Amino acid sequence: MNKELEEKAHWIDEYHEGVRYGLEGKVILEESSPFQHITIYESKKYGKALLLDGCWMTAEKSEKCYHESLIHPALCSSKQINNILIIGGGDGGSARECLRYQEVKSVDLIEIDQRVIELSKKYLPIIGEKAWSDARLNVKIKNGIDWVKNTENNAYDVIIIDGADPIGPSKKLYSYSFLKDCKRILKPGGVFATQSESPESFHQIHINIVKVLRQIFDYADPLYGFVSIYPSGLWSWSFASMEKPIYMYPIESRVKEIAEKCQIWSERWQKGAFNTIPAFIERDLAKND
Amino acid sequence: MNKELEEKAHWIDEYHEGVRYGLEGKVILEESSPFQHITIYESKKYGKALLLDGCWMTAEKSEKCYHESLIHPALCSSKQINNILIIGGGDGGSARECLRYQEVKSVDLIEIDQRVIELSKKYLPIIGEKAWSDARLNVKIKNGIDWVKNTENNAYDVIIIDGADPIGPSKKLYSYSFLKDCKRILKPGGVFATQSESPESFHQIHINIVKVLRQIFDYADPLYGFVSIYPSGLWSWSFASMEKPIYMYPIESRVKEIAEKCQIWSERWQKGAFNTIPAFIERDLAKND
Repeated sequence: MNKELEEKAHWIDEYHEGVRYGLEGKVILEESSPFQHITIYESKKYGKALLLDGCWMTAEKSEKCYHESLIHPALCSSKQINNILIIGGGDGGSARECLRYQEVKSVDLIEIDQRVIELSKKYLPIIGEKAWSDARLNVKIKNGIDWVKNTENNAYDVIIIDGADPIGPSKKLYSYSFLKDCKRILKPGGVFATQSESPESFHQIHINIVKVLRQIFDYADPLYGFVSIYPSGLWSWSFASMEKPIYMYPIESRVKEIAEKCQIWSERWQKGAFNTIPAFIERDLAKND
Repeated sequence: MNKELEEKAHWIDEYHEGVRYGLEGKVILEESSPFQHITIYESKKYGKALLLDGCWMTAEKSEKCYHESLIHPALCSSKQINNILIIGGGDGGSARECLRYQEVKSVDLIEIDQRVIELSKKYLPIIGEKAWSDARLNVKIKNGIDWVKNTENNAYDVIIIDGADPIGPSKKLYSYSFLKDCKRILKPGGVFATQSESPESFHQIHINIVKVLRQIFDYADPLYGFVSIYPSGLWSWSFASMEKPIYMYPIESRVKEIAEKCQIWSERWQKGAFNTIPAFIERDLAKND
């Protein structure tokens, strides 16, 4: 940090059930959009960061462990990856990882809050990177629930849900009716992917997401990784498909296209991450209720 | 928490390079031993907790993700598990997990700081549990470095290093000469295990530990899991052996003996955890330097 920044240095903490996680730094901007309170922060540890409603969402030097975990298990395995839908993802990181594949012809990014995109482009351009100027990216400022409802059957090869915690504007992104609609608009041979919270800090929500996906799709499995700035540090993403759990089997040519520049993801890492399900979660998922 | 506790509630944070991790609760006891500053804390989230020199060491409702990850890959796979050595581990959790195996005949627990044991027995009895009264446990208040130096060759089936971060009293537990001595006193067919820090928060220390182990033993591999109360939440443990990487292959009868009551560990989880090496760490370990 420069001298001026150092003098004003302070901490922002995210509070969650008797735990707090804070980064030292300086507030760059605070404002309220029609949907949420937005903070842009310059942190010592992870560079510039975005908070929504006081929760850490992303940071320049932390975002890859989230975006690589969400995107590559889906994009490496889906039968085709011509047309991708991203719901949320206004920081641009998910779009960036999708657009690394030459096969991808279009990415529809449906973000409800225009200010998240505008502020991410301005303050966190390193996250969206070249995605924002890629002709294959179509940004729509819309409600993702409505978008999915109004989309014709079998429209997308891959659907990515990159939303915040299931409270506030993101709550319906984890509902049965929304996820059922997602399946309807997913092409045969396609893969559905969503972040699915921490099995430690949001235990019941995590279990519910996986169980609902298993009701709707033929196959659904959680994958476990880490995002140090999120509650508990342990995080999960869940993948779903029809006929076969194809998200388990990366296609070699796609692996070759992306692996070298990944920070966390590798074929080996992914294989491991589908297996590191904590024993108590495996038992909870096996229960009938 | 009861009402009295609630009124006095406050926070303790561990600080690490521009990041802080705090738990809400109440200080029960603070004192300085000849080796370190010790705090016993009643936290809302994880129950009673132990801090050494201001760093979270263990907590009642968080300790299993640490102890199961350190102990079971070693105890499930070592050719024999008659005689176990634990260096550190004064909270009793590692001894407790070892003593779950009927084959284990003796556990030598070498802890440098008597007060850690006394305070753990008094305030965190749930962690050591029945281990403290198990006739197979031999507690010695000694310097672990000296103990290993003065032990005859091929004395132990399994050696567990359960120390704090490699600063302060634990620093030498990660040195070449100490680890070389550990190999000397390990029986053929035995397994060596150590916590090996966060690859995110202690990147270079983590790389060094694995590389030194690979210089000394025929095989050494890190395993990745999570400990929410430690810096970054992502944590690692490393295992080493001669002739074959036997720590990769749990023995079925031992798995059956312990799996049902494990909270995190399972054969599947362990297999995954040896594979979830972040891509950048895999590249760093492959570099010659």
